[in-house]
Formats: sequence, structure tokens, C-alpha cells
Amino acid sequence: MNVTVNHRSRHYRTVTFDAQRNEVLLIDQRLLPHQFKIAAQGNYRATAEAIRNMVVRGAGAIGATAAYGLAQAARAFRGGGLAKFDSYIEAAFQILQSARPTAVDPVNAMNAVRVAMQWGQTVEEQQALALAAAEQFAQDDVRHCQDIGRHGAKLIRQNMRVLTHCNAGWLAFVDIGSATAPLYAAQKAGRAFHVYCDETRPRSQGATLTAWELAQQKISHSIIADNAAGHLMQRGEIDLVIVGSDRTLGRTGEVANKIGTYTKAVLAHRHGIPFYVAIPLSTIDWNLRSGRDIPIEERAESEVLGAWGMKPGSKEFLYVQVANPTSPARNPGFDVTPPELITGVITPQGIFKPAALWKNRDCLGHLQSR
Amino acid sequence: MNVTVNHRSRHYRTVTFDAQRNEVLLIDQRLLPHQFKIAAQGNYRATAEAIRNMVVRGAGAIGATAAYGLAQAARAFRGGGLAKFDSYIEAAFQILQSARPTAVDPVNAMNAVRVAMQWGQTVEEQQALALAAAEQFAQDDVRHCQDIGRHGAKLIRQNMRVLTHCNAGWLAFVDIGSATAPLYAAQKAGRAFHVYCDETRPRSQGATLTAWELAQQKISHSIIADNAAGHLMQRGEIDLVIVGSDRTLGRTGEVANKIGTYTKAVLAHRHGIPFYVAIPLSTIDWNLRSGRDIPIEERAESEVLGAWGMKPGSKEFLYVQVANPTSPARNPGFDVTPPELITGVITPQGIFKPAALWKNRDCLGHLQSR
Repeated sequence: MNVTVNHRSRHYRTVTFDAQRNEVLLIDQRLLPHQFKIAAQGNYRATAEAIRNMVVRGAGAIGATAAYGLAQAARAFRGGGLAKFDSYIEAAFQILQSARPTAVDPVNAMNAVRVAMQWGQTVEEQQALALAAAEQFAQDDVRHCQDIGRHGAKLIRQNMRVLTHCNAGWLAFVDIGSATAPLYAAQKAGRAFHVYCDETRPRSQGATLTAWELAQQKISHSIIADNAAGHLMQRGEIDLVIVGSDRTLGRTGEVANKIGTYTKAVLAHRHGIPFYVAIPLSTIDWNLRSGRDIPIEERAESEVLGAWGMKPGSKEFLYVQVANPTSPARNPGFDVTPPELITGVITPQGIFKPAALWKNRDCLGHLQSR
Repeated sequence: MNVTVNHRSRHYRTVTFDAQRNEVLLIDQRLLPHQFKIAAQGNYRATAEAIRNMVVRGAGAIGATAAYGLAQAARAFRGGGLAKFDSYIEAAFQILQSARPTAVDPVNAMNAVRVAMQWGQTVEEQQALALAAAEQFAQDDVRHCQDIGRHGAKLIRQNMRVLTHCNAGWLAFVDIGSATAPLYAAQKAGRAFHVYCDETRPRSQGATLTAWELAQQKISHSIIADNAAGHLMQRGEIDLVIVGSDRTLGRTGEVANKIGTYTKAVLAHRHGIPFYVAIPLSTIDWNLRSGRDIPIEERAESEVLGAWGMKPGSKEFLYVQVANPTSPARNPGFDVTPPELITGVITPQGIFKPAALWKNRDCLGHLQSR
């Protein structure tokens, strides 16, 4: 996506790989929108930490990061036969997966890498295949987002007011994004519309990342408190909701996404406002049989008890304690939206009713993901 | 309420009046929980500003503040007959009212002062009656909150998990609070329970004021992001919701309260969780015929775009810009919850279905408020 940094305009991707240095390169999303910095991860443990610490976040982006991370691990392996290599890769897989247990993309992405590696007869061949597969995953991620945009753009009519939650923009993917892809495609098609960005506490990805992206793309938008969407819907000021997903259950149509998504779906349902989830195929979990089995991360209390921001008139980016210092917090990071609240799932293959994902599993990559 | 400040324990009220100095004394709620300070307002314009700037907020507290403010204006009047005095009082009334247009308490409170003043034959008599009426309003506010607690405590059973939104605690009143009154009464009756405090962006009154109050009272509680309540309800972790109200329509049962209240009511309704609104009678608006006629303040964008907090390890209380600096915000301060989402309205006179307020208007102070 086009980003202007230090008065130079350049096309960046959220996640890339430096094969020479065997480094995973990430736009450090914790510093945005206040600072634009590429953070190089020198080994797979650092790459896992970057996922855990939210240097990188978002379904496709952490999928690509995990795929590159596994390739990075493979390429760093020295001395030892295939058996030792296998158990080393298995350990690296576990470490990268455990960095974001709610998400399914890292698992699907790393499985794709592992499947590709099987074609190699030697450690060296498998190392080369690992990187090729990770690159392919990243390239596919971009293409899938383009396809999501093509299908989803039809939903956006002139002068619509669209609500988004969290960031499922190009920062959440290798490029383009899922929930934002229809917006960018509709803009290209010449349509004008307005986007309300939920600020998305506690980490405020809507106020920071989505708003920053939309500002870069020159799309009309306003940030609102998470509390305000219900009121705007009640007053007829929202026409459409599009969100992303960290994991969508192919068998049930349940959607796990950033905490607060479920609330917006309940509100949209009450007001008869279409509620769409935009996902690449890698986000579909074909195995789990119930949304209650999706592990929901309880994240650090400090996220709820304070906020990160920039002291006006300074370059100081700091954390402030907002809440009463003697009070504890609960901080579930994700929630699960049931299919009856979802109008449609926008995929690279078209738009489906959530309950119809399973019936259409053959065209939605069920077999490839095994 | 009992507050420990500088190692001394003392009983404070949120709003008091210094008759000697003709000053309205307010606990400065913008600094809590980080700093406890009494802010003296030297004239009625400063008192109006304190309402506007959220030095004081909450239904009963701004009612008492406006009542004291009008008495303060009356007592500052010098030179001139009753006719001049009347138009001066009318102007002061308008200025105090315009400081928080969504709320009805200031209007009801100041009307009570004006009615009492009519008994005076001279400016001096009316000045004395104004202060007596304001003191009476404040005293009644405390008694009404005690009565709300008595009725509402029955709803809170052992080990319940209760959700609150914003602050309708003692800081929102002269003492005790409305939404918190049942909690404090249930605690006195020996029951144990847990309170989830919505942080209540953008101004975070739940994370700062309610959490601080509950910590002072040693009531078990956790702060949650506004996004998290839906998830907790879905997982069966919330049994009851109690909120306050800035204005409740006596004719329709519609409830205006802090932005986000409507969302919580929609969620509670979906999950079959009882949703109660606790109010003193002064909060009832017997005139308006539709919630759509309640003016909804659009507050400053900066509230949504950043946060106030304490830099850890320092005494620096500061504002940080959280959001993308080039993005605008919308900031409606209040929303309106329809009666079909409200299980009951807890008043000093008992608990009523919202649709039954009008039928019971005689016992709910309809005549006194005219």
C-alpha cells in the first residue's frame, strides 16, 4: 500500500523476508500512527515474540509472519539429519503457534510450509522449499485480498456510511486487507462513502491503524468510541458493517474476531443493518465443531488500565495509567459471533451465507488446508 | 462517603456550599483517581463552567451544583429591585442550564429553588430562601439515594456478577449514588458479589470514578473494556446490569444516559439478563413526549482521539494523543434506551416498569416538579 514517510512515497508491504540476512521484516504496528519503522526479526524466536507483542497483528499478516518464521527457523538449522531437523521444525512450529493461540492463520500458513517441505529429500532441499512456500503464502494473501475487494465492492453504494471494527486493513495482511479491501475497490470504482472506525479498545487498532490507513488512502472517515455505534445505528447513520476475522469455523459459520465484534453484530441485527465478515480462506478453521472450543486469549490487564499515545507537541510515545491504580481488570482479547447475526462472509471466492461455508468447502480450500 | 486522603479518613460529599464565602465546593472529578482535590467556585459563572468542564458530573451532583449555583447567583446580587433581580436570576438559570443540555436534573433542581424563592417578599428574603431550597435539594438527594439502595438491594443475591456503565455512584450525586446505592446497601446487608465496571470511553468514568469508589468501599470488582461485556454475557458471566440515567422520560419510559448504555441494554436483552436503571425522581422529565427530542451533546473530538492518565512512576497527569492525528472523530455524549429493553426503574419510591412511570406519576413527584 502507498505510504508517505519522510516526504517520500513508496509502496510497502506489512511483512517481507530478507533472504540474504534470513530476517523477517515487519512494519512495527505498535508505533503507528505516530512513527513508521521497519523492525527486523533476526531469528524465529524473535519472530514469535513479535507476534506475541503485537509488533505485527491481523489474520493474514501473522499468517505470513509465521510462515516466514518457520522458513527462517528451517534455514537457520545447522548440522544434523532429517530426523533431528523434523523435531526441530516441530518445536519451532509450536513456539510460533503459541504466540497467538486464538488465530488459525499461523497454523494454516505453517502447515502449507510443512506440506511443501515434504517434497524435499534433504535438509537443504527442505530449507529451500520452506522459503518458497512462505513466499507463495504471502503472494497468495495479496491476491486473495484483491479478490475479496472485487466481490465486496458491490456491497458499497454511493454515499453509504460503513462501520468497521479493529483493523482488518492492509496492516493486518501482507497488503490491501480483508475488511478494507471492498472499500479500496469501491474507491477505485469511483464511489464516495464514509467510514466510521470503532476505536477498538483496549489497543485502539481502529483509532490508530485503520484511521491511519484510511487517511493515507484519502477515504472520508471518523473515529468513534466503541460505545457510540449503537447510538449511530439507532439514529439511522450506519448502513453497513464490515469486519475481519481471526478464525471462522467452516463447519458452523461462527466468527472469532477482536473483542467487541459480537456486540456490533448484535446491534446491527437489531437495526436490520447488513453485517459482513471479510476473510481470506486461510482464516477458515475446518476442524473445530463449536465456537466455544476457540481459545480466547486473556491479555494483559495493563491494556485495559491505560493507553498508549503521544504527548502533544513532543516526540514522546508513552503509556499512561488511566484507571484507578488499585483496581484489577479482565481483558478477553476476542469474541465469537454466531452465524445468525452475519449477513454474509466475503471470501476470495465470492460471498457466502455463514451456514453455507461447509456446503461450499470444496471451492473454499477445505482440502488444500488439510 | 468515606474517603481516605493523606492517611486521614473523612466523610466527604461530592457537592457542598460555603455560605460564608458564597462558594460552591466540588470534588474535582477530572483528577480522580490520581488526585483528590476540592475545587471552590467563586461565582455562578465559574460554577456553570465546572459543570461544562466535568469538574462535576452525574445527575444528582450537577443538580445540586446547579441549585447551589443559582442560590450563589441570587446571593451575589447587589442593588436593584425585585424586577431586576428576577431577570438577573433568569439569565443565571439559562447559563447554568446550558452547561449540560442533555440533563434534566439541573432544570428540576433550579426550578425547585425558584419556586421556593417566590415565597420571599424582598430580594433579601428570596436570597435566603434560595440557599435553603438548594440545601434542601442536596439533602433530599442523599435521602433519595438511600431509598434507591433499600429497594435495589433486593435484586442483588449472593455471588452475583453485576455490570455497571459509567459512574452513577456517590460522585455522581451528593452522596451514595443511584446505580451504586443497591450495591452499597447489599454490602451492608452482608452479601458478597462482584462488579464489572465498563471503562466507559471516551472519558473513562467507569475505569476512573466507579472503580475508585468501589475500591474505597472494598467491593470486589474488575474493569473491562466497553467491548468486553457482550462476550462476558455470552459466556454466562454477568447476572445483572444496573446503570444510572441523566434523563428518564416519565411519559415513555425512555432513558437517556452515557453513550454506550443503549448497547448494553440491547446485549442484556438478547441474553435475558435483567437490566435496571436506578434514578432519583429529579431525573424524571415529565414533559418530553419522545426520546428523539432529547438533545444529545456532541462533545469535543479530543475526548475520542486521546486519553487522560498518569505517567507511571511520576506525578504527571497528562493527555496523550492515541488516534491517528490526521483523523477526525464523532463524539455523541449520550444515548437513549427504549423501555422494552429495561426490566425496571429503581426509584426512591420502589421499582417500576418503565412504561408504568406515567401511571404512577403522582407518587413519583410529577406534581412537585411542575
